[in-house]
Order: sequence, then C-alpha cells, then structure tokens
Amino acid sequence: MAQSFLEELKAELPEDADVTKAQLEGSRIVIYTKTPEYFADHPDLIKKLVSRYKKRIDLRAHPSILLETATAEKFIKELIPKEAEITDIIFMPEVSKVIIEAKKPGLVIGKSGKTLHELKRLIKWAPHVERTPSIPSQITKVVRNVLYTNAEERRKFLESLGKKVPPKKLVEEESGEKWVRVTALGGFREVGRSAILVQTNESQVLVDCGVNVAIESVQSYPYFNAPEFDINTLDAVIVTHAHLDHSGLIPYLYKYGYKGPVYSTPATRDLMTLLQLDYVEIAQREAKKIPYTQKDIEDAIKHSIAIDYGEVTDITPDIRLTLYNAGHILGSSQVHLHVGEGLHNLIYTGDLKAEGSRLFGPAETEFMRLETLIMESTYGGKADFQPPRGESEKRLFEIIEEAIKTKAKVLIPVLAVGRAQEVMVIIEEFARRKKLENSFNIYLDGMIWDATAIHTAYPEYLSESIRQRIFHEDENPFLNPIFKRVGSQKERMEVIESSEPVLIMATSGMLTGGPSVEYLKHLAETKKNWLVFVSYQGEGTLGRRVQKGWDKITLENEKGKQEVTEIKLHIETLEGFSGHSDREALMRFAEKVSPRPDRVLVCHGDNNKCLDLASSIHKAFNVDTYAPKNLETIRLR
Amino acid sequence: MAQSFLEELKAELPEDADVTKAQLEGSRIVIYTKTPEYFADHPDLIKKLVSRYKKRIDLRAHPSILLETATAEKFIKELIPKEAEITDIIFMPEVSKVIIEAKKPGLVIGKSGKTLHELKRLIKWAPHVERTPSIPSQITKVVRNVLYTNAEERRKFLESLGKKVPPKKLVEEESGEKWVRVTALGGFREVGRSAILVQTNESQVLVDCGVNVAIESVQSYPYFNAPEFDINTLDAVIVTHAHLDHSGLIPYLYKYGYKGPVYSTPATRDLMTLLQLDYVEIAQREAKKIPYTQKDIEDAIKHSIAIDYGEVTDITPDIRLTLYNAGHILGSSQVHLHVGEGLHNLIYTGDLKAEGSRLFGPAETEFMRLETLIMESTYGGKADFQPPRGESEKRLFEIIEEAIKTKAKVLIPVLAVGRAQEVMVIIEEFARRKKLENSFNIYLDGMIWDATAIHTAYPEYLSESIRQRIFHEDENPFLNPIFKRVGSQKERMEVIESSEPVLIMATSGMLTGGPSVEYLKHLAETKKNWLVFVSYQGEGTLGRRVQKGWDKITLENEKGKQEVTEIKLHIETLEGFSGHSDREALMRFAEKVSPRPDRVLVCHGDNNKCLDLASSIHKAFNVDTYAPKNLETIRLR
Repeated sequence: MAQSFLEELKAELPEDADVTKAQLEGSRIVIYTKTPEYFADHPDLIKKLVSRYKKRIDLRAHPSILLETATAEKFIKELIPKEAEITDIIFMPEVSKVIIEAKKPGLVIGKSGKTLHELKRLIKWAPHVERTPSIPSQITKVVRNVLYTNAEERRKFLESLGKKVPPKKLVEEESGEKWVRVTALGGFREVGRSAILVQTNESQVLVDCGVNVAIESVQSYPYFNAPEFDINTLDAVIVTHAHLDHSGLIPYLYKYGYKGPVYSTPATRDLMTLLQLDYVEIAQREAKKIPYTQKDIEDAIKHSIAIDYGEVTDITPDIRLTLYNAGHILGSSQVHLHVGEGLHNLIYTGDLKAEGSRLFGPAETEFMRLETLIMESTYGGKADFQPPRGESEKRLFEIIEEAIKTKAKVLIPVLAVGRAQEVMVIIEEFARRKKLENSFNIYLDGMIWDATAIHTAYPEYLSESIRQRIFHEDENPFLNPIFKRVGSQKERMEVIESSEPVLIMATSGMLTGGPSVEYLKHLAETKKNWLVFVSYQGEGTLGRRVQKGWDKITLENEKGKQEVTEIKLHIETLEGFSGHSDREALMRFAEKVSPRPDRVLVCHGDNNKCLDLASSIHKAFNVDTYAPKNLETIRLR
Repeated sequence: MAQSFLEELKAELPEDADVTKAQLEGSRIVIYTKTPEYFADHPDLIKKLVSRYKKRIDLRAHPSILLETATAEKFIKELIPKEAEITDIIFMPEVSKVIIEAKKPGLVIGKSGKTLHELKRLIKWAPHVERTPSIPSQITKVVRNVLYTNAEERRKFLESLGKKVPPKKLVEEESGEKWVRVTALGGFREVGRSAILVQTNESQVLVDCGVNVAIESVQSYPYFNAPEFDINTLDAVIVTHAHLDHSGLIPYLYKYGYKGPVYSTPATRDLMTLLQLDYVEIAQREAKKIPYTQKDIEDAIKHSIAIDYGEVTDITPDIRLTLYNAGHILGSSQVHLHVGEGLHNLIYTGDLKAEGSRLFGPAETEFMRLETLIMESTYGGKADFQPPRGESEKRLFEIIEEAIKTKAKVLIPVLAVGRAQEVMVIIEEFARRKKLENSFNIYLDGMIWDATAIHTAYPEYLSESIRQRIFHEDENPFLNPIFKRVGSQKERMEVIESSEPVLIMATSGMLTGGPSVEYLKHLAETKKNWLVFVSYQGEGTLGRRVQKGWDKITLENEKGKQEVTEIKLHIETLEGFSGHSDREALMRFAEKVSPRPDRVLVCHGDNNKCLDLASSIHKAFNVDTYAPKNLETIRLR
C-alpha cells in the first residue's frame, strides 16, 4: 500500500521537483530531492501535500548534493552566532540530517526560523536543533546518542511504522462494525502498575505500563496475562509520564518481543530512562528479581517517538494521538485519543495537578472533542483536602530557620523526579530572599541531581514564570550554587557527620530503600533533627509506618544484620506540595473540562477514593461514571 | 499427572481387585478389572474411592472376561421382561459397554436397578439403557449412532479430557492471584447470538454460542474477534438450550479448530442437532453463506457430554458445572458454575420460564451457593405484561371453534422447538374434551414433528403432570392421532386446498422463511382465516411487520418473482403461551432465588428492557445490578 502511495505522490509533483525518494517515516512523509531550491521557490507545493495527506512533510536532500561534512560544519559555525553556544554537531548521512546541540537553541533557529532556513539552503543537510542541558545530563546524552548512532536502524523502524499507518485517504472503507473499548490492566482501584489497554476493531494501544515498586510479588505488574492482552498484536504504547508506576515496565515489553513505537514527550522519554536504569540497578544491587536489562531500556529508546504537547499524530490507522499538559511532573501528559473519523474521543489524565504548581502550568481542560474522560483519583476521597501551598511553604521555612538555629538536619525523602524539583525551587527562592547561600547547604542525593539536569534540557515544559526567569532573566533556579550533589558514600557520611545545619533531599520518596533510608538511620535518634514528608506514602512502605508514628523501626545495617533504630526526630508532613490535585481540585477539573464528557471513568486511587470520586462526579454533573476494577473492560462505543 | 494418579489408585486397591487399568474419562474414573465380583462383594471399596476422589466411578470388565456378544445378547433378552420393548442392543467392546435401547427403560433397570445389576453380573458388559422415543426420531438415532460407532475415538477424547481435569486433591496449590470474570460476547442488550465467556486465572469457558437468524450480517455472530476470545485455549463449552440463538454456532467452533467438550442435557444435544442441521440446510437451499457443514455438526456430537439436571461435573481444574431446570423448552438449563474452592458461584439462567408451563416444571430457584446471577430480560420491560395462560387458552379455543364453524384455516407460526409442543398439548386436551378427533385435524409442518419425536425420547424432562400421564396412565399427548405430519410440498398443497377447517402449526416462528410463510401466502387473502402469533416476533422480521398491521407484503413466488400478498385474514397475538417469564415473573424469580446473589447482570433483551430490569431489581432488592454491553468484561472476583 505504501508503495502505491509513493508512486502516487511522485506522480503529483512536477518533474523539476526531482524527487528521488518519498516515504512514510512514522507519521511523517519524508521526501528526498535533488533540487530543494525548487521547493523553496514553490512554497505552495508542500502546503498542498500537507493539506492533501494530513501529514507533516520533511523535505531532505539527496545525498549527492549534501555539502561535505567538514565544509558544512564550517558553515554552521560561521552562520550561527557564538552566543548560541554550540556544544556538538552530529551528521546523520543515513537521513541527510545534522543535529546541532546548543545551549541557546533559540539563537540557532533565529527569528521565525530564519537562521536555520538560511543554513539549510547553504549546507543542504536538514538541521535539527537540540538544547544542551545547563546541568550536564548523562541520561539525555545517552538517549540522544542511542538515537543518533542507530540512524539507519531507526530509519527502517520509522519506515515500517509508516507502512502500518498509511495516510487516511488510502485506508479502505471498513464495512464491519466499529467499536472502542478500554480494559483496566493495572492501577484501577489502586495506585501503582498503571496500564490501560485501548482496543478498537482494528487497533491495540497500551497507555502506560507501570510497576508497583512498593510491593514485591506478581501483583506489582499489570495483568499481562489478561486474555485480551497480546504483545504480538500491540500497535503502539503511550507513556503519560516518567514515574515508574506509569513507565516502569516499558522495557519489559521489548524484552518480551514488542517491536512497536513508544510515544511520549521528549522529557518523559529521558526521565523514564533515568528511572528505569535506576530501577534495574537497585534490583541488581539488592539481588531482587531483575525484570529486564539495560539492553531492553536501550531498545525502548530506539523505538521511542517523542512528540510535543499539541502535536497531532496518527499512531494506528484509526487512532490519532495528542498529548496535553497534565501539570504533574516534567513532560507529564494527558493522552487524547481520537478514534475513527469522529467515532470516539478519549482523555486519560495520567497523574494530574490540575491547578499547576510553581514548576508547571495548569493542566489543559479545553479539547476539540471529548466523550470519555478517564481521570486519576489519588486524592479523590471526600476527606482528601490539601492545605494551600503557601501554608506548607511557610511551615517549611519555619523548619529550615529552626534547623539553622539549632544546627539540626532536615531530611526530605523525595522521588527523584517531581516533588524534588518543586521543593528545590521553593527553597531556592527562600534562600535567595534570606541570603542563606553562605550559611546553609542543600544536599541532593540519589539521582535528584540527574533528574534536575534533565529539567534543564527541556525548560519549555516548565511553567511560564520559570521559563520567563530562565529565558529572559537568564536566572535558572536549578543552577543556584546552594545545591550540592552527594555522589559517594564518603560524601554522604561527611554530610551526616557535619556539625552544620543542612537540608538533605534524598531518594527514595517513601523510604523503601536508597540514600533516604540511610540518612534516616543516622538522623533518627537525634531529637532536634527533622523528617519532612512532602509526598504520598504508599500503604506498606516504611514511609507510611513512620508517618503513622511507629517509634521503632528495624533496618539492615552495613553487615546485613537487623538493627533497631528509634525514631526520635521531629516528623512533619507537608501536603501542600503534592503533584496531585486534591479532591476539590479534581472536582473543579471535572467540571471545567470542555466539552463535557458523556462518561467519566475513575482510576489511580485506593478503592474507596475511586468509588467516592466516581459517585460524587455523577451526582454533581449528572454524567455516567464508573470506577472499573482491574481486568474489567468497558465498551466506549 | 494423570499417570501418577493411576499408580496411586491402583496402589490403594487390594491385589484381589485385579485392576488392569484405571483412567479418567471426562470427569469420571473408569476402572477395568478382571474380578468385578470382588468389587460386588466389597461395596465399600467403590464408596471409599468416590469420597476420596470426589468423582463418579465406572467399573468395567477386562475384555478377556466379557461374555461373547451372541451369548450376552441371549442373556439380555431372557432377563429383561418383554414389556420393556427392547428395540436395539449395541455392544461397544472398546469400552466393555452394551447399550440397550428400550421403549420402557424403567423395566430394563428394574426396581432400584436390580435387573440391570443382575444383568451386569451375568454378562460382565456394563449395561447402559437409553429410551427409544415413542415417535421414531431420526435425529436421536443419528446422534446416538455417532456416539456408539465412534466409541474408540470417543474414549480417547474422554481420556484426554480426564487428564486436563485431574481430581482435586492432585491439583497443586496455585500461589498466584485467583480471579473470575465474564465477557459479553453476544446477546447483551439484544436478543440473538447469545455467548458468554467465563474466564478465571486458569480456565476459559464459553456458555452458549448462538446466531441471530433474524439478520444477515457479521452482526449475527457473537464477537469471536473479541481480543480475549481464543478458540485454541478454550477449555469447555456449555449450552443452555437448543434454540439457535443459543446453540446455532456450536459446530462453527469445531470448524475453526475447537477440540474440547460441549456440555448440555441429552435433550438439548439432540434438539440442537436437529436445529443446526436445519439451519445449514436452509442456508444451502437459499444460497446463503453456509457457516459450517454436517461434518462439523457431527464433530460437535462426538465431543458432546450429556449431563442431567443436578449432576455435578468438574469441567476444568477450577470450575464445577451443574445444570438446573430453566422451564423454557425441553432440556433447557440454568448453568451453575462453582469456581475454585468457594471462590465464586454463578448462575446464568439462559432463557427462563420461571413459573413453568404445561410442559415444564418451574425453574429451579434454590442453589447451594450463589454470588452472581446473570438473567435474561426478553420481557423485562416495565410494560411487559403477559396475560394469564388461561385467558390465552380460552381465546385460542374460541378461534378454533369459530374456524370449525366457518370452515376456516388457522395458521400458527412456531419455532419447531418449544411453543409448538406447548400449544400441541393444550389443543390436544381441548380436542379430547370436545371430542374433535374426527372433525378437526392439526397439521404439523417443518420439523415440528421431528422436534416432538425428541420430546418422546426424553419425557423425564417434562413437567410432573405430563410425566404422570405418560408413565402411569400410558397416555402420551404427543401420540394423539389428531396430529398429522406434513412431509412434502404435495401434502402441503392438499392441506391448503382442503375445504375442511384445519389448524396448521408451521415453522419458522417469525415468518422469516420456511413453510409458515408459504401457508401465509395462500391463506392471507381469505378473510375468514386466522393467523395466530404465540411467540416473540423479532425486530425486522416479517412476523413483526404483519403483527404491526402491514396490510400488504411482498414475497417471492415459486419462480423467484416478487409478488404482493394482501393481508386480509384475522391476526391475533396470544401472549400467554410464552416460553419466557414476563416482567412480573422475572422480578418474582429475582426475589425468590436463594441464596440472594450479591450482583445481578441482565442480558437477552432489547436495550431498554435490560436497563429497566437491572434498575428495577437494584431498587427492589438492593443488590448491585448491571446490564453489560457486548464486548464488556465484568470482574466477578
């Protein structure tokens, strides 16, 4: 089918366009030509093709006309202003592309893309600009490297994908009945192992594929053994955001033979790679069952397709995907699926901070069309009230001041991604205001540094006010020298043994392992110290137990022996920094979403919270609601 | 696993028992011995095995000690009283069994099985008694023949089945999570194509597999393309009753590779064979798409396992099946599934006449355990009121008397199975009372005769009062000579052209084809004639249109030309003979069912009737109710 499409497309272009190849790569049409100047002179040509095929079009030069790489590099360096701070130039002859990494991508692109346009005209290579993170990020480097160095493999993958999702006009009219349904494979009436299978009469799409890291059993995985789940017929995978309860088992799919694409924002792609690598490493270190290897993570990267908020992409012949801001963490998305030609429209919120936060803008609530809304319910219970952020901030500042006064240590267990950066930004502002930079240090231990680095690679996903500071005031809060990285056991002990007041942010966020537990072991018995929880503590975790007031905990020491630690330090829970909307905000979101959906399905919350939110939304807005159980299937159309 | 079981079982028996073979066949344990007398002398031996393995045990003789067939036959004829009217004796050496067909099986068996017991002692062959139908039934003969002549193949099938369902004590404790769910594959929020997939963490069972004969499109089949349906992993199929909307696609499963058992009552097995053969024949004749062939129907028979009401059978390692009377047609069953050791209990009513009728006793309402009830809703709407049967009977008698007076003809379109026999019994009683036998004839056309014959093969499935008449008064209503068979086009024309008043019962029941349409064509334009509907007329059928009052219909004549027929005859609908409970009776059934289920799922009714009944049951009895849509999956446990 794709073959006939190429013939057709070539036949439509004038001979002067000199098209040597035209193919679908992913959901784009890629056209190779020996006369790019002809297209430049006839801008309507591309516009016509776009409107006809409803696909984005990449115009690339035939290899024979590409400038020699040394010369091209010279032109690039001459044309792009020094201030752009180019850090790398990578040529990908397999696809006639050149990647330009720079600290200020805007200056590479130029006003309305003028510089880039001029550059392409000169060197013929299609330039592609990536931001160099302000804090060097090993992960972003690795991810991009995997994508660049496997250019040929990747081209083939995109091409095969393109064949599966031909332009709409070529899809034959199906005579059979059309239907849409969703199956709860995990994360329904519970938090953890989120996975939703969306099936239509012709497509199979998995949205999220998480693992419940709080428990160790077969029940920490989604129901992969559900009879309707078949990895061999899966067309596409979508990830809402990087947290492991949504992305943790993506590489596992590749391990078991999945060969299709995984769609997410670029920020999610990099962050989930970070968390997945860490997940496997911890499993190895703790001699737990290892779900997959680095090779599988790499496989996931190779098959990743990064799309930005609002970018409409055909992912199967009958499903069109658009991601929208969810306000939860960097790159977190709501997934909008448009099925068939107006057959059904679905939003799945993923994890949701509807009202936004310091770091992220409020979640999107305006959609073109919407019939079914699947929304999270982490704090969907009647009693789930979060105090205003201001209150929590005030209390945190009090604690910091008290700690400075008493030379105490404050431990904040955090997930590497999300609350960590939110709290960093808040404290950074406070420290600047109070001029604490020289009297107080904030230590980041266990991957928070790496996660923060990725935030500096994708500042366009941050809230407007932060973007404003970064882009226009050149003042990136994450770069404040008050933040120190703890990179070794030695440095960790120095922090613990120092007599100075310090604030430590360390993973894991629920004290299920990692440096935060180690700090706790050493800080717990000193009364003046502080343990501050800023995020959800899952049932069964050490965090939850300590939060509930257990005064003794048993932990393994360095020699593998069980040791009792008395919990004497101050314990404080600050709920105002949550990355989730509370009950009231969820209700407001459900009310505000436009157009109003016919049906709301509730997930991602304890049993009662799901039921309670579903019933409250039904009563308040008179729409059908339901809180499915795992393994249930709901027919949407 | 089965191997070790045999060793174990043999090891448990004393050497004198001389067991040469012991194996599982289906859900029975079959033991071959050279010394059956040893078991006879030690009756506790078998009892002990039964209570230990929770399986029925068939004791059979080693071939070496079987009496020569000629001698055995002589003994049988000598020992069994003449009055038993033996019609056939079939030896099955592959399984050391002898089938004795007789018109009075009770006399073969003897009081408390005494005669049979004595016979077995003499001939060593295990005797198995079948009733010879009073009206010769070609179908019952064919079905039984397929089973007898393929004894070896069948033994192997049962043996392979036995290996899959080992005795409970040998099933290893599963450590994984256990769950139960049902998926609506067809017949939900609609009537037709009934099919329910019951899945547990270890089993896949399909209950019913019907076709919607009223429409011709892909939507007449269940959703076999549902992602969770996999014919290759299906463990068992159960059929509630013989109507094609529940059994019509059973042979289709075998055509596409299903090799497992199909469970039903023996009456359902024979009746569905009749209807399936007819379905295929009509498709062939009308040059429609032929869903399967006679070979596939034969395949279904070969894999059939007939069980009686109340007979508990392990059908998979974690599902135990029991059938209960549903009161709807001959052999119609409610399906009770006991999953796991008390994990979940499910009743699916199939089609239900809760209060019973002339022909059948009221549906069972007492179950050992019950958590989920799936019930039909054909007449589940608020307005679905059926007049008392007495009223409809009275009106029918008036019509008959009027017809006799005016020498008119009465046409009753009926399904071959069900209403036909109910109405036959009613008219037969009326005719006897009024002594009409010589002045009035009742013609049966199109398979009604064959279906009635099968009723005479399984009188134990009839209501107590009819059984009483048949067994104790030797007065079988179906044998009344007032009933005449129409067997050819010539005979049909004779009936049509006769000047005598007659009553004609003819298929199809909804005027979708067959002789009833033919009769209508000839009788419709004569004003004094009658057309009497006694059953549900599906949306879109000719029956429904005529019932609604269309005064002209267009039909194809013998030469394939379209011809307009004016509808001038009297049209009457008598709803009191329905094989379905009306709204009130359904509510009473839901109330009476004991124990009260936690959840009621409603199916088999138009959209609004399903929703209405579900909501009414919820309000009345405060249990969870839901009317699933096709392709939805509900988690029961």
